[in-house]
Amino acid sequence: MATPTCPSSPAEPVAADLVPLRARRLGIDTHHEPVVVLRADSPVCRAEGFEAHARVEVQGAQRSIVATLNILTTGDLLAPDEAGLSESAWRRLAPAAGERLRLRNAPPSDSMSYVRAKIFGAALNENQFDAIIGEIVAGRLSNVEIAAFLVACANRRLRAAEVVGLTRAMVHAGSRLDWPHPRVVDKHCIGGLPGNRTTPIVVAIAASLGLLMPKTSSRAITSPAGTADTVETFTRVDLSLQDMRRVVASEGGCMVWGGAMNLSPADDLLIRVERTLDLDGQGQLVASVLSKKVAAGSTHVLIDIPVGPSAKVRSQAEAQALLHALSHTARAVGLHVQGLITDGSQPVGRGIGPALEAHDVLAVLRNAANAPDDLRQRALQVAAAVLELGDLAQGEAAHALARNCLDEGRAWRKFEAICLAQGGLREPGVAAFRHPLTALRDGRVTRIDNRLLARAAKLAGAPQAPCAGLWLGVHVGERIAREQPLFVLHAESRGELAYALDYVQRHPDIVHVEA
Amino acid sequence: MATPTCPSSPAEPVAADLVPLRARRLGIDTHHEPVVVLRADSPVCRAEGFEAHARVEVQGAQRSIVATLNILTTGDLLAPDEAGLSESAWRRLAPAAGERLRLRNAPPSDSMSYVRAKIFGAALNENQFDAIIGEIVAGRLSNVEIAAFLVACANRRLRAAEVVGLTRAMVHAGSRLDWPHPRVVDKHCIGGLPGNRTTPIVVAIAASLGLLMPKTSSRAITSPAGTADTVETFTRVDLSLQDMRRVVASEGGCMVWGGAMNLSPADDLLIRVERTLDLDGQGQLVASVLSKKVAAGSTHVLIDIPVGPSAKVRSQAEAQALLHALSHTARAVGLHVQGLITDGSQPVGRGIGPALEAHDVLAVLRNAANAPDDLRQRALQVAAAVLELGDLAQGEAAHALARNCLDEGRAWRKFEAICLAQGGLREPGVAAFRHPLTALRDGRVTRIDNRLLARAAKLAGAPQAPCAGLWLGVHVGERIAREQPLFVLHAESRGELAYALDYVQRHPDIVHVEA
Repeated sequence: MATPTCPSSPAEPVAADLVPLRARRLGIDTHHEPVVVLRADSPVCRAEGFEAHARVEVQGAQRSIVATLNILTTGDLLAPDEAGLSESAWRRLAPAAGERLRLRNAPPSDSMSYVRAKIFGAALNENQFDAIIGEIVAGRLSNVEIAAFLVACANRRLRAAEVVGLTRAMVHAGSRLDWPHPRVVDKHCIGGLPGNRTTPIVVAIAASLGLLMPKTSSRAITSPAGTADTVETFTRVDLSLQDMRRVVASEGGCMVWGGAMNLSPADDLLIRVERTLDLDGQGQLVASVLSKKVAAGSTHVLIDIPVGPSAKVRSQAEAQALLHALSHTARAVGLHVQGLITDGSQPVGRGIGPALEAHDVLAVLRNAANAPDDLRQRALQVAAAVLELGDLAQGEAAHALARNCLDEGRAWRKFEAICLAQGGLREPGVAAFRHPLTALRDGRVTRIDNRLLARAAKLAGAPQAPCAGLWLGVHVGERIAREQPLFVLHAESRGELAYALDYVQRHPDIVHVEA
Repeated sequence: MATPTCPSSPAEPVAADLVPLRARRLGIDTHHEPVVVLRADSPVCRAEGFEAHARVEVQGAQRSIVATLNILTTGDLLAPDEAGLSESAWRRLAPAAGERLRLRNAPPSDSMSYVRAKIFGAALNENQFDAIIGEIVAGRLSNVEIAAFLVACANRRLRAAEVVGLTRAMVHAGSRLDWPHPRVVDKHCIGGLPGNRTTPIVVAIAASLGLLMPKTSSRAITSPAGTADTVETFTRVDLSLQDMRRVVASEGGCMVWGGAMNLSPADDLLIRVERTLDLDGQGQLVASVLSKKVAAGSTHVLIDIPVGPSAKVRSQAEAQALLHALSHTARAVGLHVQGLITDGSQPVGRGIGPALEAHDVLAVLRNAANAPDDLRQRALQVAAAVLELGDLAQGEAAHALARNCLDEGRAWRKFEAICLAQGGLREPGVAAFRHPLTALRDGRVTRIDNRLLARAAKLAGAPQAPCAGLWLGVHVGERIAREQPLFVLHAESRGELAYALDYVQRHPDIVHVEA
């Protein structure tokens, strides 16, 4: 195969640093990895000896980035003196009008030499992880390079000390919050369980009892709703750090989106490449969870690990191993971690999707008659464990404390106060387009596939369409009669409803009913 | 961070398979990995729930490809019903005018489940390698996925049986030549040594003595010249398989470009990603070399392994280990391999670059007074080993046979005949722009950096500009006087000459002279 490169040009090239290029915004979102496009007959292209897909340094007047080079071989998308920039390249360079760019082959990356050492079996130290994570956050490593790092660290190839080094490096790469209190409680769920939205309830209970719980949450990456997506259906979540501090100072707790706070910013970048590869290395997971918690200024963290055949963690043994690794690393980075292994065999509550989950959360907090008891019980279980971490009570006393707080309306009042401080409380909406899926026969529900159900909710529009998702009519173990609804699809448009319906009709076993 | 995906659109989407898109050629060479660009407000985008950077299946009327999705978030590069295709996507789909495309999320890849198994320590069998290599050749794996495969196989994580399985899979993925003779000789050099262009001389000697040596060579990937680039400066190399067979039938040998023959097509794709990561796993190298040889129909192969501090193989121990791995795998795939560990401490001959190396080759074949003796001696060494493999003679007798063949002009006459059969013999050109780099003091040359020298030749325009490169005035151990030329840069344009000159002036230690 001929090497596709900048081909020979009859025009006479001159040294690249004599040929500045005009920046041109292409509008193409190539995701995290910056891309720059040059015409094949661009003088810079040949003068620099660029190869297709080379990593090049693009220097503007103020900033410089490393980008992947693509070559325009035909058509007139660009003028010969233009450099086309992808959206991430454009954002990072932020060129002024008329600003000229200079390109050269990117200098070798120190951090990639550490990645190679890791590939060949070396143990890395914290400084080396700092270099790798720093370059990832600065956008200087390509997705191919990030993939090499992740694979080199997978399959327990990260030793315990390396997980600590990686966790610290991920903290160093972003901001770190601090709170004027020696004990800051937090919770985290290892995910994979639709509807498991205990956070707002737990924050309300803990804060109402005087604990400091400045909770930052993320939006969905792969699921139909993240906690921030759900909370956003009833109050504001995109608070500035200053506003967050004000809410926490007056109420002792908050429920905000952590995305704007720059806490462990490498985490999302690593997760996205991991997801492409469908990899989830344990060392990486531990560093991901704990770096966010350290950066958020938490000191005592409850980790909820749902275990089930279609959850993220699939066996008790796996859960124990993960908890062991979490605890070891947590100690080393000065966090106190408590694990809570829970039932992950089926979705929690009735709603799946931002607003649908919010309705469940509000019903539990209001002690409504229709509040899903499974969500209430899980929230109380997690809240009791958080109260133990906060040293308010232990064992059954902690559970009673949480339950009373909820039953007597103290949790609801604290919840209202937090929402008001964050910008007001409103009722979540209801989707305009709904369609029930009914049982084909009488029988008993023997299993529900979390993953297929989540996919159906996403196809219905969640989380971008906040009212989209689905409402679950049954849980495992319940009897159901023919023609009764297994679940109801919710969508904000007729098209999305049709689309999700098509999917669930092609997957009749999402909710399995045995005669 | 908000998940960048197809955002909510006020327009009502409908199911994706009801919305065919018009194919639009963008002209952008994203290299091997096909890319498709959709507008964020494209109805398909939301209906399919595509995430940015998702892997999508693009179905045309005749063909279907897997591509990486980029999203057009601003600007008017595309109409709402257009799907923009990168060059590799366009080539693979080859849509007819007016042809409509349908997109959906790509189905999970079987081969990636094997890659994940490898990441987690499993040994793969030949069928699993067949699946992986088959999807790579079909363009169905992204560079990120190929990188994961390469890293999973690096650091001797491929067992001996797996290297055999991988080699066979790489052969299966392409064409396989066969020759009407039980013994087909071949040679291969492990590379990294500029100017080590023995192939045309060895082919001429072997074929003149009645051996069958149907040599296929590659173009440069990272070096200033591949054998095919050099041969192309004096005869045609892009022969069809039919023409190649005709040349071999009449002359017993040929020197053609293997790129059009589809021999182990996975090899280039793997090498390009390896190069991005600056990785070279031994198992991968063995499979790369041997799969090309099996596919070319060779039975007896001489492997030249130059060893030197700036060559690809840097120690005798490394060379022995490589040779051991090559021999083991070769036996398993039915090849007879003989290793030849040679001096790789400095470039061979005088010329570096396609035409400059061709002048050296022709001088040796013509027994010219100015023929570089080091190239002549290496070619005789390799040729003697090939004659041994061909069972014509052994030891000193084989060397004498090769030497006589060259000295008496038989090799030259065979070389002329092969060139005529391939389309004619012409003199390679000479670059119009030249500039000597001279010694700054009297002294002795103690070392030459192969890598920096190769880079200088590439900056001067090699191999795209066939006459570009450099001419080496001295070798290690020779004395040189102040103002004498260390080497002369050759370029086809003034700009490239200036550019290479700038580089060598910034690297004064390419040729190291000690007083």
